[in-house]
Amino acid sequence: MNRAELASLYARVRRTSEQLAAPLTVEDMVVQTMPDASPTKWHLGHTTWFFETFVLSTQPFHQPFEARWFPLFNSYYQSVGVPHPRAARGQLSRPTVSEVRAWRRAVDEQMATWCARADEGTFDTLAPVVEIGINHEEQHQELLLTDVKHVLASNPLAPAYRPLPTQKGAHVALAFHAFDGGLIEIGHRGDGFGYDNELPRNRHWLEPFALANRLVTAGEWLAFMCDRGYERAELWLAEGWEHSRHERWHAPLYWRGAGDEWMIATLGGERPVDPLEPVCHVSFFEADAFARWAGARLPSEAEWERVTATQRTDGNLLESGALHPCPLGVAPAGVTQLFGDVWEWTSSSYAPYVGYRPFQGALAEYNGKFMCNQFVLRGGSCATPARHIRASYRNFFPPAARWQFSGVRLARGR
Amino acid sequence: MNRAELASLYARVRRTSEQLAAPLTVEDMVVQTMPDASPTKWHLGHTTWFFETFVLSTQPFHQPFEARWFPLFNSYYQSVGVPHPRAARGQLSRPTVSEVRAWRRAVDEQMATWCARADEGTFDTLAPVVEIGINHEEQHQELLLTDVKHVLASNPLAPAYRPLPTQKGAHVALAFHAFDGGLIEIGHRGDGFGYDNELPRNRHWLEPFALANRLVTAGEWLAFMCDRGYERAELWLAEGWEHSRHERWHAPLYWRGAGDEWMIATLGGERPVDPLEPVCHVSFFEADAFARWAGARLPSEAEWERVTATQRTDGNLLESGALHPCPLGVAPAGVTQLFGDVWEWTSSSYAPYVGYRPFQGALAEYNGKFMCNQFVLRGGSCATPARHIRASYRNFFPPAARWQFSGVRLARGR
Amino acid sequence: MNRAELASLYARVRRTSEQLAAPLTVEDMVVQTMPDASPTKWHLGHTTWFFETFVLSTQPFHQPFEARWFPLFNSYYQSVGVPHPRAARGQLSRPTVSEVRAWRRAVDEQMATWCARADEGTFDTLAPVVEIGINHEEQHQELLLTDVKHVLASNPLAPAYRPLPTQKGAHVALAFHAFDGGLIEIGHRGDGFGYDNELPRNRHWLEPFALANRLVTAGEWLAFMCDRGYERAELWLAEGWEHSRHERWHAPLYWRGAGDEWMIATLGGERPVDPLEPVCHVSFFEADAFARWAGARLPSEAEWERVTATQRTDGNLLESGALHPCPLGVAPAGVTQLFGDVWEWTSSSYAPYVGYRPFQGALAEYNGKFMCNQFVLRGGSCATPARHIRASYRNFFPPAARWQFSGVRLARGR
Amino acid sequence: MNRAELASLYARVRRTSEQLAAPLTVEDMVVQTMPDASPTKWHLGHTTWFFETFVLSTQPFHQPFEARWFPLFNSYYQSVGVPHPRAARGQLSRPTVSEVRAWRRAVDEQMATWCARADEGTFDTLAPVVEIGINHEEQHQELLLTDVKHVLASNPLAPAYRPLPTQKGAHVALAFHAFDGGLIEIGHRGDGFGYDNELPRNRHWLEPFALANRLVTAGEWLAFMCDRGYERAELWLAEGWEHSRHERWHAPLYWRGAGDEWMIATLGGERPVDPLEPVCHVSFFEADAFARWAGARLPSEAEWERVTATQRTDGNLLESGALHPCPLGVAPAGVTQLFGDVWEWTSSSYAPYVGYRPFQGALAEYNGKFMCNQFVLRGGSCATPARHIRASYRNFFPPAARWQFSGVRLARGR
Repeated sequence: MNRAELASLYARVRRTSEQLAAPLTVEDMVVQTMPDASPTKWHLGHTTWFFETFVLSTQPFHQPFEARWFPLFNSYYQSVGVPHPRAARGQLSRPTVSEVRAWRRAVDEQMATWCARADEGTFDTLAPVVEIGINHEEQHQELLLTDVKHVLASNPLAPAYRPLPTQKGAHVALAFHAFDGGLIEIGHRGDGFGYDNELPRNRHWLEPFALANRLVTAGEWLAFMCDRGYERAELWLAEGWEHSRHERWHAPLYWRGAGDEWMIATLGGERPVDPLEPVCHVSFFEADAFARWAGARLPSEAEWERVTATQRTDGNLLESGALHPCPLGVAPAGVTQLFGDVWEWTSSSYAPYVGYRPFQGALAEYNGKFMCNQFVLRGGSCATPARHIRASYRNFFPPAARWQFSGVRLARGR
Repeated sequence: MNRAELASLYARVRRTSEQLAAPLTVEDMVVQTMPDASPTKWHLGHTTWFFETFVLSTQPFHQPFEARWFPLFNSYYQSVGVPHPRAARGQLSRPTVSEVRAWRRAVDEQMATWCARADEGTFDTLAPVVEIGINHEEQHQELLLTDVKHVLASNPLAPAYRPLPTQKGAHVALAFHAFDGGLIEIGHRGDGFGYDNELPRNRHWLEPFALANRLVTAGEWLAFMCDRGYERAELWLAEGWEHSRHERWHAPLYWRGAGDEWMIATLGGERPVDPLEPVCHVSFFEADAFARWAGARLPSEAEWERVTATQRTDGNLLESGALHPCPLGVAPAGVTQLFGDVWEWTSSSYAPYVGYRPFQGALAEYNGKFMCNQFVLRGGSCATPARHIRASYRNFFPPAARWQFSGVRLARGR
Repeated sequence: MNRAELASLYARVRRTSEQLAAPLTVEDMVVQTMPDASPTKWHLGHTTWFFETFVLSTQPFHQPFEARWFPLFNSYYQSVGVPHPRAARGQLSRPTVSEVRAWRRAVDEQMATWCARADEGTFDTLAPVVEIGINHEEQHQELLLTDVKHVLASNPLAPAYRPLPTQKGAHVALAFHAFDGGLIEIGHRGDGFGYDNELPRNRHWLEPFALANRLVTAGEWLAFMCDRGYERAELWLAEGWEHSRHERWHAPLYWRGAGDEWMIATLGGERPVDPLEPVCHVSFFEADAFARWAGARLPSEAEWERVTATQRTDGNLLESGALHPCPLGVAPAGVTQLFGDVWEWTSSSYAPYVGYRPFQGALAEYNGKFMCNQFVLRGGSCATPARHIRASYRNFFPPAARWQFSGVRLARGR
Repeated sequence: MNRAELASLYARVRRTSEQLAAPLTVEDMVVQTMPDASPTKWHLGHTTWFFETFVLSTQPFHQPFEARWFPLFNSYYQSVGVPHPRAARGQLSRPTVSEVRAWRRAVDEQMATWCARADEGTFDTLAPVVEIGINHEEQHQELLLTDVKHVLASNPLAPAYRPLPTQKGAHVALAFHAFDGGLIEIGHRGDGFGYDNELPRNRHWLEPFALANRLVTAGEWLAFMCDRGYERAELWLAEGWEHSRHERWHAPLYWRGAGDEWMIATLGGERPVDPLEPVCHVSFFEADAFARWAGARLPSEAEWERVTATQRTDGNLLESGALHPCPLGVAPAGVTQLFGDVWEWTSSSYAPYVGYRPFQGALAEYNGKFMCNQFVLRGGSCATPARHIRASYRNFFPPAARWQFSGVRLARGR
């Protein structure tokens, strides 16, 4: 990317973050309703801190906007200081939302200047870091929505983020498409941006398998519930069973009700569950139990990427404005809904590819240190910016996480 | 009190609450930094809820401002619904601060109308409840300041609530004044407002005792610290010792430093500890250990009231504007600093007086159900409205509580 | 007490401890089923450690039996070392039961020798410590039984300690006996042994009151349960309510069942609840809620002692062999069951008497440091040695404790 | 296996368990010092329960020895009842050790009779279950030792299980042996016994790699410690870093000391660390951090099996009697110490092989439900029976587990 392209992309992505925050009250942007979900204010500040810390601060004569804020907006980079505890992000009333916005403006101006004026060597060295920062900000756009959904849905008043369009779906039969096995390559091809965890391209041996033509629906999930899926230990991993008992799980997160009267909290407020919509906000533990109940299994990430690598990155992504997974309107020809709607849990533990090398410097902490006790999700969701997703993209969360837009696609051997 | 007096007192007290919130940002008013400390927004709403629930809602044709908010602002009244969990008050972004303010205005108007127009019987029945509500609001004025102090002081940026006047003190020697024992009466005399827990007047046998002429100072506390007071198990109650080890207490709350360089966070921001100021933000456990170290003990509440009953309720109270305990300027003639500055821990467990009867109805929950595992504090603090304090007033907190403006006065046998 | 008397008393009390352990298997003596309840092996060792530490070790040329064991059997005396954590007493397989018994024998021999041969000055100085040790051992005899009851009753196999005699009771109407108020004195009179916490004699002003003629029965407790006593917040102290919700209390400890089919685990195994037996194993929180439900209250310790001071210390104590509270056989003339059967919760927080002075030296830690967040119980139980109990005796436990033989006597104003 | 062979193997394995318990006191066999480590008594009972539940109870007319014991000794088989909570196994004083031994004898007799007399169809159906039971008992032999080591080493008296032979080692340089990549097959070949989790044989693509010639030594671990390995966040997985901070790890489990004076608790008691012995009792988190520090990585389980599949299962296993990893005496020709000494952490998450099918019936719970948040270990340890280990054997523990005989072998790319 040349200077103008980078500056323009930077400006566009930064603007999107602010637009996403626009419908919120100051109060909505400050509150933290679970340890893993950060306040909107924090997301706006953290992404700014990223550019100031890893780009601007490396430049001579740079004056930090407010150095005392840095630890507050450091997420987990031990090598650049001691981060403020994650679970206590909602305890910070200062800096205020408008102070954070002023910070954003100041950094954006400095970044624009830097893009225009940095000498060539510096630009070439740091442009990749800026690009990481831009992708990083896109990740936080999804998190901002995910986290504010938790804030709003946790409130007994159940306020909406904004009105959502209604979606009308059709019944589409579940079908499995067969794929050959063999030696395949997965990972990022080197065209365009990719994270360190998508590299290097690496070979896998696959046995023949079949992949479902679409996502699991809320209606199918209701059938699982009716069949006492949440009460049958034999369907669950031991750790999942214990966790679900302890947390008294009996439906996906954001579902409220009983019998066949189920309501769902969406970013548009509460409404009845649509049996045709893809089920969302389920954990790996639930996805895995559902698959066992259905006589199937979750796909591995290699299987998923094998199928998806040849597809266009179309789907119900952030830009559709739906902000919720959509029911299918017509039966798909092949395997559909691979991108967007919901992140798809895979059976693959999040692990380094053979030959993995972390980003250099402080950014080595970006991905590698989380490769433990997490599972890979693929495909992006209705909250993922379209620019951000690709077939080789590896998202990851612990198996009990439910507050992400996460759902299920089935697979099986052939 | 007649209608006009009640209406005028109501209006004045309600206005004070809003004035106390005026220096705060919206963010400051939403955040909750410990389970026991509520957001300012919650205090403003809860006191309003109190009037709407216990006065307005009992009237025919009353339309609640927003009934769905009621559980959110119910503190602990099981008999009028299921209160939102105390520790989760900071997780509510809605209603917003301005919605709560609109609610206050609406209730204030209705209360004014009610005061003016209620028929005589109703007025006579409910005026005492209104009076409780007014006193209740005064209590929350102190809590509002106490809690927002925690919000601000917990923030690494250490913002100030507002600039505080500087205080200049003089060294005043500690002296003990002797008092006779005998059969005394304590409790509220029935002149003016009193809580149920101050009643009935009741008799106590006292042995002769002596009471310190002034509060323990920060300088004396430093001497305790230098003498390893926080490290010597023999000075502490067993439960206090365990608690202080677990919490790693080594100085009063809001002190930061080491050796003889100690800073203190005040509502005016951080500044050096003044050895002449009364020590503040210490728990009962610390107060008790300090007294043992000093070869003294804490006074019982009967002893304290015996001495104080004859004094005027003068002192460094909310209206002084100091918002912090003040050093003495000159040596007092008798026993001084009894009112204001800091709440004084007594050795008395919070228990019902012989013949105690709770308020009637739902307000039975106001005081009685907390008479367990708490200790009585006396005399009010620099955050207590002057109108609110009296010799018979019983405040109470668990022995580990430190975030109140709580300090120490010594006593001993004669 | 002269040398022979002391030696004989020592021998007798030490023998009793071993007799109490005799029905147990080695396994029963090692296991710890809750943090507060210690293994039998630990009780046998700790009482031995007491004599070795506070008597024998103060003598020249004393060789400890095994100094490495000392911290393991130190309960809470910070001044003589760092005690092994209380909750981890059940994690010690060594020393074995037979090693502890050998230790007992060795210390007993040395104590016998010391009693016979210590020079006069030493004897006079230390005899009071020996006497404390003897009383201390008696306390642990009750605890041994209380704790092993928890071990056995926690076991799904519900084994018995030994067969218990069956008791046949009669219905005795509840009646309140009236007592005058006035200035009274309570505390130990100085005749025979007394703990520091019973001293000094001190004056109290009492208002007229009435005390129930007998203990509350299991049948009355069933009526409380049927009347939804465990589900009505208005009957409970706030802390008790929360605790009972959290622990899902719905009957006394060791009761199992539903409706009117209730079983009770006793030291003789499980059998149906006898409605005529005194209710036992209830916490202060439950006792207080029951009293409120019954339109009464708990007595203060001064009231209780006022009534009891003139009575003989007769009752169903350890020596009766019942090991369980007994139903009354005939209607009592006055106030009965004051000694034995169950410890009676009073409304009095455990606090020092005016003028209290702890034992000297390390034994200062014996009582004083626990005077916080506990309530006083009076009168002894079916597990208390007869020699050990007296009208001025103050037992104390936190308000949530249930595993003691604790029950309820009602009081009220007149 | 025919009847006589099965009966003889059964008898031999059962006898070994009892021999392993022989050096212990009753007290040692009852105590539980951490939730994951079970009492010896429980191991002896659980393995017996396994045969009674899955073999004898399926036979007509079988009378259970004591049916009330079954839930107490059920480990985690939800399909055959509700297991007693794992963390509370040490709270059971009954059945006693001698009752459990009587149970063992009774079941052993019945099993012998069954082996001799079962009709052919029954024998053929159940012989595989008996064989699983025998292998299961071997697993528990290792656990018995592992767990009792924790009991003894947790005791401040540091008692020994029995005297251990001393081992003399020599310095052997660390070297990496290169291996080709390519398509390999791993998993059990079907000769002799194998668990369901070793099946089916399955293909993996390997890139070329190198494997260390020997295990990491205690001396090398000391170098890691000296180089501040436990204090450098950049070496650790994020979850490992947090865990190690929280638990204050600064050396392997069972090491005690500072500087270069380190003691190690072994089953033979405490002695100085031998720098030449393989490091043991380290978690996956520590192993992974060490490997990163050493510029290497852990092997995957496919790499490990690729190298080991052709080797004899020789090594320092249970039968050597060492009960502790041994230093190498001479430099090995190739890759050595693959079997015995310590379980080797691999980089592989414990996951089902492609095409995995659990055992049928209740035994489906044996392995499959644990395939989450655990890592695979290979090769057996000094506490593993020789008969029990093989190249395809997959052991698994959570990444924070340290109480197993677990150590480290390094790998790297070529």
